[in-house]
Amino acid sequence: MWRLYQFPLCPFSRKVRLLLSEKGVPYELWRENPWDAGDEFWALNPAGRTPVLHEADKNITLCDSRAICEYFEETVEKMPMINGTVASRAEIRRLVALFDENFYYDVTGPLLHERMKKRLILRQPPDSKALRQAMKMAHGHLDYMDYLIDTRPWLAGSTMSLADLTAAAQISVADYLGGIDWSGHEQTRGWYSVFKSRPSFRPLLSERMEVIQPPSHYGEIDG
Amino acid sequence: MWRLYQFPLCPFSRKVRLLLSEKGVPYELWRENPWDAGDEFWALNPAGRTPVLHEADKNITLCDSRAICEYFEETVEKMPMINGTVASRAEIRRLVALFDENFYYDVTGPLLHERMKKRLILRQPPDSKALRQAMKMAHGHLDYMDYLIDTRPWLAGSTMSLADLTAAAQISVADYLGGIDWSGHEQTRGWYSVFKSRPSFRPLLSERMEVIQPPSHYGEIDG
Repeated sequence: MWRLYQFPLCPFSRKVRLLLSEKGVPYELWRENPWDAGDEFWALNPAGRTPVLHEADKNITLCDSRAICEYFEETVEKMPMINGTVASRAEIRRLVALFDENFYYDVTGPLLHERMKKRLILRQPPDSKALRQAMKMAHGHLDYMDYLIDTRPWLAGSTMSLADLTAAAQISVADYLGGIDWSGHEQTRGWYSVFKSRPSFRPLLSERMEVIQPPSHYGEIDG
Repeated sequence: MWRLYQFPLCPFSRKVRLLLSEKGVPYELWRENPWDAGDEFWALNPAGRTPVLHEADKNITLCDSRAICEYFEETVEKMPMINGTVASRAEIRRLVALFDENFYYDVTGPLLHERMKKRLILRQPPDSKALRQAMKMAHGHLDYMDYLIDTRPWLAGSTMSLADLTAAAQISVADYLGGIDWSGHEQTRGWYSVFKSRPSFRPLLSERMEVIQPPSHYGEIDG
């Protein structure tokens, strides 16, 4: 069976978990904190990052969340997530990059630094200015998502795609860390509620990172 | 014709230029500095980053260097760059991410910040500690490349792939900015020399960013 090296608040691992669940690929979770990973993990992934997928029996190791998603898109037909014309596929991949890079850089990354890394590792208080800035940037990204959802049923077009899984993974971590103010974003909130009710999403919502607690609305489908 | 929005030292635009040249896709260059881009550019790419490829006649816009490369891999058969078995393709994409993310984060990004952004925009002197750290990290990455080239003809396997183009693009910018000390890296230096002599690479080596000059060995094939 595939073993997924991850930690509960890794947004890139969450994207892979959503994809594997939607496609019906069985896997087991293996907790790995990249900030204190051992030699075994570095040997699997010289980039030193989660997620990593490993299949010991077949001696296959997959690193990098986008490479992993492309691999399962190429090998598992069920629930295609990078689908349609070449233009549609380019649009899906553009949005995957937008959430993996811009949303992560502006919102999820700073929240993880202030609310997880400082608490668990650095033992420092969070910087309230950095938190305010991340929440402000989140509003900008949600505005853009509202615009997309106004014009399309799903973020990249007429069907659910890897763009939706990527955005939901990033938002779920930001929401866990109290960085999402949903007021004024009814379209995106509705889209996210649909996601929260999917069987693929339920396990993520019930997991907790030690010490750090999410706000009360986090795990509620209508929250 | 495709128009590529880029600036001379953008490593992600360089990767796309190498791919388009290798595949024989004609394009024109359009200079765009993301740090003072206008509304037209932001309308093309809400992520506000180069490269962007635009085809006005067909009204197609492609954003994100990986999405762009996948698009041309799917539409132009010549010189396949994400090739082989699903495992090979996953290995190519893993290394693309390693250079686009880790190498950029450790080496190219800090060098661009210290030697380009501070000079052209912030009007500050470079931080010599940050420069030393970037050069030290470059050594670590070149060690890993030496190891790969010891065991394989090309970075991801038996044929040239997008992994090689991505690494060459990042290294060329780092080398332009004086961040690569080639001593002790004969394998990678040999691999890079082969690259520098390719017709796809020559235009990059002769280009200059205003004000900032590369070291004398930069443009030489045996340099």
